[in-house]
Amino acid sequence: MQKNAKIILGIDPGTLLMGYGLIEVTGSQVRLIEMNTLKLSSRSSDAYERLQLIHKKVSQLIEAFNPQEFAIEAPFFGKNVQSMLKLGRAQGVAIATAIHAGIPVTEYSPRKIKQSITGNGNAGKEQVWKMLQHLLQIRTEIIHYDASDALAVAMCHHFQFTSFKYQGKKMKGWEEFVSKNPGRITK
Amino acid sequence: MQKNAKIILGIDPGTLLMGYGLIEVTGSQVRLIEMNTLKLSSRSSDAYERLQLIHKKVSQLIEAFNPQEFAIEAPFFGKNVQSMLKLGRAQGVAIATAIHAGIPVTEYSPRKIKQSITGNGNAGKEQVWKMLQHLLQIRTEIIHYDASDALAVAMCHHFQFTSFKYQGKKMKGWEEFVSKNPGRITK
Repeated sequence: MQKNAKIILGIDPGTLLMGYGLIEVTGSQVRLIEMNTLKLSSRSSDAYERLQLIHKKVSQLIEAFNPQEFAIEAPFFGKNVQSMLKLGRAQGVAIATAIHAGIPVTEYSPRKIKQSITGNGNAGKEQVWKMLQHLLQIRTEIIHYDASDALAVAMCHHFQFTSFKYQGKKMKGWEEFVSKNPGRITK
Repeated sequence: MQKNAKIILGIDPGTLLMGYGLIEVTGSQVRLIEMNTLKLSSRSSDAYERLQLIHKKVSQLIEAFNPQEFAIEAPFFGKNVQSMLKLGRAQGVAIATAIHAGIPVTEYSPRKIKQSITGNGNAGKEQVWKMLQHLLQIRTEIIHYDASDALAVAMCHHFQFTSFKYQGKKMKGWEEFVSKNPGRITK
């Protein structure tokens, strides 16, 4: 990690997959450290083992990368009470792991994240991912959108308290990007 | 703590109050260590601060009493998705704190707990509390049923793997208690 760099860990917890993304912010520069998913469904059918896996992975990420900020994608609405209870548990476990490590937790709704990255709160996952590829100069293809969603919440958190540079210009989110680069809009 | 004693921590997490109860099991003897509630609503209106309070309190209880077992009351159904998400988070934070300490977690539905303590899965909180008073020779009055609910889940967990004595007789839950003491049923 560079001097004065800040690491943000973004988490998108689910009941079948947990996405995570880490970025390093140095001044106005942002770079991708890692993004991936933790598969929960295929590795365990037991609800508690899944929560243990979430706790273990988040603990490992905190230990390995020592993030100063923790941002979490937190939907507030869902289709049924059962799925929301499970989602709440997964969120709670991830949040508690950050609390235990003394890392401040900030949550963002999916709409806020999409708005922050693309300027459109109803943007699709592909559009969010393409903007992240631009911003972080990512050449690889996406495997799971849960990973890019987690990266998006980390970037969204970053955007809350700073501006950033893209192709030498100071930017603040997609809205400014769009206004200065009308031809780059992904539709 | 006596030699060969086992401590069970029971938790009834909610969004406004968290109940907790601790029992010490030595052979067939069970005694109350502590039962109380953590007030969340009056102390903080911020959702994350409430989760931090849950984490802090459960951590303190684990450190102070070194329980070998962790039992949690976990309703599976609720009225709306919002409340279930909040409840799930509170559960998740309590569960993660136990996982972090390496303590096995067992969850019980409210129905299972009531069944285990009173023999009736639809028993009222007062009936559960009266049975707990009998079993643990508690003379004090209840302040919050969240505390007795937490104590009940600890006792329920205890009943899953052992029998116990009441007035010199070996018992296993309310059903046996009732069959041997028909006059003691609280209705």
